[in-house]
Amino acid sequence: MRAVDLIRKKRDAGEHSREEIEFLIGGYTRGDIPDYQMAAWLMAVWLRGMTRAELAALTEAMLRSGEVMDFSDLPGKKVDKHSTGGVGDKTSLILAPIVAAGGLTVPMISGRGLGHTGGTLDKLESIPGFSTQLSLGEFRRVLRECGMGLIGQTAEIAPADKKIYALRDVTSTVESPNLICASIMSKKLAEGIDALVLDVKTGSGAFMKKEADAVHLAELMVETGQRVGKKVVALITDMDQALGRMAGHSLEVIESLEVLDGGGPGDLRELSVELSAWMFYLGERTKSVEEGRKLAEVMIASGKAKAKFRAAVELQGGDVRVIDDPRRFRRAAHTFDVRSAAGGYLEAIECEQLGTALAMLGGGREKKEDSIDPSVGLVFHKKTGERVEKGEPLVTIHYNDERRFEEAKKMVEESYRIGAEAPRGKRPLVRKIIGA
Amino acid sequence: MRAVDLIRKKRDAGEHSREEIEFLIGGYTRGDIPDYQMAAWLMAVWLRGMTRAELAALTEAMLRSGEVMDFSDLPGKKVDKHSTGGVGDKTSLILAPIVAAGGLTVPMISGRGLGHTGGTLDKLESIPGFSTQLSLGEFRRVLRECGMGLIGQTAEIAPADKKIYALRDVTSTVESPNLICASIMSKKLAEGIDALVLDVKTGSGAFMKKEADAVHLAELMVETGQRVGKKVVALITDMDQALGRMAGHSLEVIESLEVLDGGGPGDLRELSVELSAWMFYLGERTKSVEEGRKLAEVMIASGKAKAKFRAAVELQGGDVRVIDDPRRFRRAAHTFDVRSAAGGYLEAIECEQLGTALAMLGGGREKKEDSIDPSVGLVFHKKTGERVEKGEPLVTIHYNDERRFEEAKKMVEESYRIGAEAPRGKRPLVRKIIGA
Repeated sequence: MRAVDLIRKKRDAGEHSREEIEFLIGGYTRGDIPDYQMAAWLMAVWLRGMTRAELAALTEAMLRSGEVMDFSDLPGKKVDKHSTGGVGDKTSLILAPIVAAGGLTVPMISGRGLGHTGGTLDKLESIPGFSTQLSLGEFRRVLRECGMGLIGQTAEIAPADKKIYALRDVTSTVESPNLICASIMSKKLAEGIDALVLDVKTGSGAFMKKEADAVHLAELMVETGQRVGKKVVALITDMDQALGRMAGHSLEVIESLEVLDGGGPGDLRELSVELSAWMFYLGERTKSVEEGRKLAEVMIASGKAKAKFRAAVELQGGDVRVIDDPRRFRRAAHTFDVRSAAGGYLEAIECEQLGTALAMLGGGREKKEDSIDPSVGLVFHKKTGERVEKGEPLVTIHYNDERRFEEAKKMVEESYRIGAEAPRGKRPLVRKIIGA
Repeated sequence: MRAVDLIRKKRDAGEHSREEIEFLIGGYTRGDIPDYQMAAWLMAVWLRGMTRAELAALTEAMLRSGEVMDFSDLPGKKVDKHSTGGVGDKTSLILAPIVAAGGLTVPMISGRGLGHTGGTLDKLESIPGFSTQLSLGEFRRVLRECGMGLIGQTAEIAPADKKIYALRDVTSTVESPNLICASIMSKKLAEGIDALVLDVKTGSGAFMKKEADAVHLAELMVETGQRVGKKVVALITDMDQALGRMAGHSLEVIESLEVLDGGGPGDLRELSVELSAWMFYLGERTKSVEEGRKLAEVMIASGKAKAKFRAAVELQGGDVRVIDDPRRFRRAAHTFDVRSAAGGYLEAIECEQLGTALAMLGGGREKKEDSIDPSVGLVFHKKTGERVEKGEPLVTIHYNDERRFEEAKKMVEESYRIGAEAPRGKRPLVRKIIGA
């Protein structure tokens, strides 16, 4: 078998066998196949697509390129959630303790924020001392002790994905549903989970602006996961506006604690409960999603979820004083209210632009090496469809750097569209469910 | 400007500006743009195509990546011919002396054989002492002294093409009409010529089996050449069978000398005269192609073409004794006649397979590094449509290695199809003319 022949085959819209895909991925991971051949193949895949069988083989080859964890000695089913990313999306911080408190194990390997979206790891690191860089042995110990653990990708997990992702980034082969699916699923399946709930975002703040694209990706991921014997569902959820009322690292931990304390904004609470419910159901903890919802509510109301989160923070080295008293989080030096220039109804939000404004304040990174300011952020006062008076605050900007603030302020101001009439109807938070 | 954005643009079927193409080709030649980005871009070009304006910009950028020769101080127009390659195609050896004898300058930079086709350089090197590796200064001196010169590509000429071709070879991005056109034309235009005649082969022994593909490539090359201000025509010529009666390096020089001596097979003589005639016409030596044919015939009949060839061989260090007496060429140790298994008419020939058989005998190379045995070859006794008796020789194989011979013999035997009826009609040698 020769890489050059396999590139030709995909170029000519042929279908690869499982062996061919294993040859390519294994060879590339070992360094036998050079970057330039993989780059040509990735572009051919981008333009020619893949069959579902090829995609499953690709995902498995990437998964098997590294260590596949086995937590079968730990109690309960192992379940996880993955989100395709958005603005203010902090449900991981809420649902992991809910589900762990409910008796399942949540071995969550998360990513960092890139571009306009935040990353769970970055948010957790706003808790002083919290370490996301555990070894797999330490991760196992944390999971055994409290049923949940939140770490970053390690060198042992799906190394093929790491290498391929870096190459895609510099060869304009990122936005391929097949390659996105294989990248996400190979990492998640390496967690040794029984079931996975996917939160596929769509709307102005999501990577997939169009619902049809989100549904397509969701279908690919669900089928790929099911082909390798996992229970998988995908919820297509709204990202036309930020989730909850806060975006920014410390602020998002604070808002998550509000939900775990029984409060917090309605949309964030609703989606966290919904995702938890599906995790309970797929993890065979409850007989229905409805029962799962009730269990999630009980875990919040009883304080068990909050206690679980506190225990996890402590086990991973975090300072629990900020959990007990969120006022201890370091705050940004300044705040500024962006006020509505007109009265009317909030018609639409350029949500990705808000994420970019947050990154500009120092709360995101352009390149992987960039550092992050966890204290900056945006607090949103209005949801779409709500009545807004002229001069009423739309967003409070938390900032440290004056120059960055000026740029970000302009972006925030331009992100809001106020109309004269109340928009009709309201789009549901969960738009569709795939794979149920 | 960033390479990653330009890759994306071509991936999404966008059209590059001239500046964008110059950025890519210049950056790649200098080593600023890595192989993997160029590989992704080449695959996107393969699958998305190019506009004629992009192709002209690509060709010029590759041309300008190195030295562009200037022979304006030499007498007469500078003209050249390029063939897309076939079996037994030795017209360069005949037309260069004809056209130089007629008063034009022919600065011919040729290639080596690859796969089933022969290369002019390899054929010339069967003349003991003949050097094709002249410096550009030596090349200029040879051209000044005898009006023709035959050398290989140097490091100074279109280095972008050298680097890109090597990458295409290992990334399955060779067979793109746009990339083939840019590769050929960038090298040929670097010769500083005023006019170019293209011999685009089609048929079972050509790279382009289908006439429509040959016509498409011819149109691209003619338009690209004309866009940069050169006179260019393309002749679409038959390669359903070998040109002339001999294939193999020494044998092809011998057959070329036969034509220069006024003999030789009809088809080889006809095509050599036809291509020379177009060179005379485009080089403004004659007022018509018809006049060009007559001039070519005079150059042969007068012995001037042969004398020119002898002078060129001498200037390039070759032993002219083999030119004066071709029996002095080293011959293969053995010959064998492949005879027809049946009587009838020669219906069709798998011409590429004959070229592959020749390579197998040692007369071709699989990889650029392979060495060549110039004495092996095939002598063809029948042209398609001719009557064949059972047991009559079809091909005489000239060989040195018994083991290689057995394999090659089998391929030759399987290349001939004998039918019961005489095929109707006869396809012309020159099927179409593009750009006239």
